[in-house]
Amino acid sequence: MAEAKSEPVWNKFLTERDKAVFNTSGYGARGGFGKRPALLIIDVNWAFCGDRPEPILESIKRWRNSCGEDAWVALPYIRSLIDKCHEKGVPVMYTTGVRREDNWDSGSWAWKNSRNEEDRQAIVTNLDGNEIVTPIAPAPQDIVVLKQKPSGFFGTNMASYLTLLGCDSVIVTGTTTSGCVRATVLDAFSLNYRIALAEEGCFDRSQASHAINLCDMNAKYADVVKTSEVLTFLDALPSGMYDLPKGKPVAQPEQKQKRAANY
Amino acid sequence: MAEAKSEPVWNKFLTERDKAVFNTSGYGARGGFGKRPALLIIDVNWAFCGDRPEPILESIKRWRNSCGEDAWVALPYIRSLIDKCHEKGVPVMYTTGVRREDNWDSGSWAWKNSRNEEDRQAIVTNLDGNEIVTPIAPAPQDIVVLKQKPSGFFGTNMASYLTLLGCDSVIVTGTTTSGCVRATVLDAFSLNYRIALAEEGCFDRSQASHAINLCDMNAKYADVVKTSEVLTFLDALPSGMYDLPKGKPVAQPEQKQKRAANY
Amino acid sequence: MAEAKSEPVWNKFLTERDKAVFNTSGYGARGGFGKRPALLIIDVNWAFCGDRPEPILESIKRWRNSCGEDAWVALPYIRSLIDKCHEKGVPVMYTTGVRREDNWDSGSWAWKNSRNEEDRQAIVTNLDGNEIVTPIAPAPQDIVVLKQKPSGFFGTNMASYLTLLGCDSVIVTGTTTSGCVRATVLDAFSLNYRIALAEEGCFDRSQASHAINLCDMNAKYADVVKTSEVLTFLDALPSGMYDLPKGKPVAQPEQKQKRAANY
Amino acid sequence: MAEAKSEPVWNKFLTERDKAVFNTSGYGARGGFGKRPALLIIDVNWAFCGDRPEPILESIKRWRNSCGEDAWVALPYIRSLIDKCHEKGVPVMYTTGVRREDNWDSGSWAWKNSRNEEDRQAIVTNLDGNEIVTPIAPAPQDIVVLKQKPSGFFGTNMASYLTLLGCDSVIVTGTTTSGCVRATVLDAFSLNYRIALAEEGCFDRSQASHAINLCDMNAKYADVVKTSEVLTFLDALPSGMYDLPKGKPVAQPEQKQKRAANY
Repeated sequence: MAEAKSEPVWNKFLTERDKAVFNTSGYGARGGFGKRPALLIIDVNWAFCGDRPEPILESIKRWRNSCGEDAWVALPYIRSLIDKCHEKGVPVMYTTGVRREDNWDSGSWAWKNSRNEEDRQAIVTNLDGNEIVTPIAPAPQDIVVLKQKPSGFFGTNMASYLTLLGCDSVIVTGTTTSGCVRATVLDAFSLNYRIALAEEGCFDRSQASHAINLCDMNAKYADVVKTSEVLTFLDALPSGMYDLPKGKPVAQPEQKQKRAANY
Repeated sequence: MAEAKSEPVWNKFLTERDKAVFNTSGYGARGGFGKRPALLIIDVNWAFCGDRPEPILESIKRWRNSCGEDAWVALPYIRSLIDKCHEKGVPVMYTTGVRREDNWDSGSWAWKNSRNEEDRQAIVTNLDGNEIVTPIAPAPQDIVVLKQKPSGFFGTNMASYLTLLGCDSVIVTGTTTSGCVRATVLDAFSLNYRIALAEEGCFDRSQASHAINLCDMNAKYADVVKTSEVLTFLDALPSGMYDLPKGKPVAQPEQKQKRAANY
Repeated sequence: MAEAKSEPVWNKFLTERDKAVFNTSGYGARGGFGKRPALLIIDVNWAFCGDRPEPILESIKRWRNSCGEDAWVALPYIRSLIDKCHEKGVPVMYTTGVRREDNWDSGSWAWKNSRNEEDRQAIVTNLDGNEIVTPIAPAPQDIVVLKQKPSGFFGTNMASYLTLLGCDSVIVTGTTTSGCVRATVLDAFSLNYRIALAEEGCFDRSQASHAINLCDMNAKYADVVKTSEVLTFLDALPSGMYDLPKGKPVAQPEQKQKRAANY
Repeated sequence: MAEAKSEPVWNKFLTERDKAVFNTSGYGARGGFGKRPALLIIDVNWAFCGDRPEPILESIKRWRNSCGEDAWVALPYIRSLIDKCHEKGVPVMYTTGVRREDNWDSGSWAWKNSRNEEDRQAIVTNLDGNEIVTPIAPAPQDIVVLKQKPSGFFGTNMASYLTLLGCDSVIVTGTTTSGCVRATVLDAFSLNYRIALAEEGCFDRSQASHAINLCDMNAKYADVVKTSEVLTFLDALPSGMYDLPKGKPVAQPEQKQKRAANY
């Protein structure tokens, strides 16, 4: 028996009119992979995962940005992408946050969240919210980009790194689908990079936001694909195409304060 | 009898878990208006409105980017915002698209839409898709920003204009809620501008996308408010705070070709 | 008799201490050409060339930004670069200015030049100052980038075009060496593009500025090379590496007003 | 006896034709101070100052980027600006560099300097080249911006900080006049900030470059003024106009490695 083609995760959120419009507007065409990709892993840190797998409504009591269990479901997919990239010598770039201790550089984040000041108070674990979670901790040859706003490109040297590596495309995954993943995808699109989103590695605190943002991105900016398809694509690339860092272990964010990420 | 407080448009798209998470995460706080706003009207041109009010599934036969009737419902709200800004001497900035005749500079847009080549073919009306629609056509003292990618800030001088005007905030409206409005809001947020979205002036081809993107933006980046509230705010501002263009009539996009906008 | 190795044009402006410092600081190493260059021709329009070859002190009476005869000496070198690029199918990108008729968007330019308002007055020729000069007028397959500030990257889509073309390097020439050429080189450097400056195609209104800016750029950001060397390099490239515009003739700046460029 | 009006430092480097051209071109008009300035101190770290005042040709043996004694002559002027800003509650923003231990993110810097690899080797002092020199070390309420390329705006959140502070102008000083100061001024100009350069606080390794770059910037982008004039201007400002960081001491660059800055 033929396997039923699975519905996109967003279909159940769309109205009937939406489905009809998408069918005729021409959007959602397959953009296709590039020839020289980089893997971008967006903000997969303790603040967005919580310190352990637990239901989101529990996790957000201690970690206000936590996406709960969905984060921990995503991690093995992200791990598989990292391992394949390491095997092929494809660049792996992580983003995470960086903030002054006194939180002054919060700026616009502070106006829109009533729990913003929590990031300056003592918290219940001894983890740094901006630290990338242990299961996918960066390796010496990986690149970590510290940012203060949603997009991995904004106020960072990400574009310069991609030029240096000679990349023509990016594979994006991480969190939140509707927030920093979306913003990073938007800037990559605007710079004319081809973009693939490894779907199962993306997660969000809101189920509707996760689904609809995947829908929006797939319609206009990027190809939402299964991780298995990305792995197949990476596997077929020539090995060792890039001059990667030789490296000392990549430094994690330098804030040694035990605090939650302020987003 | 007390008037029932209306539900946000996005509530019916959220899951129960989503509503619980939003209630406790601290997101969606009111950021508040600034002191020196500019009105940004995003991409309200024939391509996104169609040439007349008609159901979207009809309109998109001729205008592949059309949002149909929702556009024409929004126009009077946008008109009222423009009129109030003109009365108070508040800057009004429009964005719209600009493209080579041979479409080479489409770039990433072309990979994701199968009807992209339509923009180079003869079309059935004699309207330029990138022309801002007549009911809200720019006045001499208004500013028009031409762009090629979603955000009004990307590849444009919008940030420089806002500095020149001494703005600390923006009021955003237009189309598409999930596309160019969203992207513009993201960049304004990243630059630390306070942002208000005049809700009824925003429109999209997808009902779910419109609702969920308003939800996302209200949660994290901007205040989604009713146009009436924006008008009240504008009315209370001192008049004549800015050095506006003295102007000759503002030039519309220079492409005289009769074509649809290529997004 | 061996041909004496010519001194760099800047040597006579440097102090003795300067020469000693440059000799030991390590600066001025040869960066080298890339594999996929684009030619960038910066602002070679009537405003900066004047309408005909004449001594600068005459030319600037009518064209306040004119570089006089030095512009017309440079033109044949620029022409040769364009012709070679066309022959090999290498992208040619021009920049020039664009401005509102009422000059409002002058911004910072206006504060620093007392002749700024000339751009709004009637002028004595019927040339548009922002029009690229006839001897090197753009061809259909060329790309024109309109800008309002010094760098060809600022407020433009130049970076996106370079990504679309898959470029890893740029060859820069044009005017002014100390102004818009310098600024464009700075941004290309910051984005990690390898940069060659075709020396004889660069010109400036100030002889000292021209020389010292070439010195600064050669020390830190770019290789200042003779046009003949660039031509040799271009000649050795594979032909037809790029997807260039197919196109219709490239539109010149859309300002039909007969006016000088407002820089 | 009347005090002779001092010649600009650049006059002795200009040719006679240059002086004539500058006199008639309209360039070099006084732009004027803004109303809400921020002080930007560019890259005044051990790498560019050396570890003690000594002639540049000595200092660059150990610190390849050193500007020698000129740095130490500048420091008291910078100190006076900082003190005045602190007294008035005007924001003080420092820039300095940040780099991976393995130097991979050097990028374009590495191609143009033959002593680039020194930054990875042991050096003879125990100072971190990227540390801002002790005489002007940042205070808790100051802001430190870490960058990897010349401009303080490139790949940083500087623009966002200026919006957050409501600034309309910047006062720039530091090093090198021809390099990172110049680049920062260019971006501030492009964003339409009014700019004053506190002349005696600016220094460079090359005397000709220092002079000519001040000339270029004064002609087109910024007002080169004496520190005493800036102090008078600051003194006349209302006190306490800004929401400054409350803060914990501002963190210095996080690279604990004892190394020279890699520029």
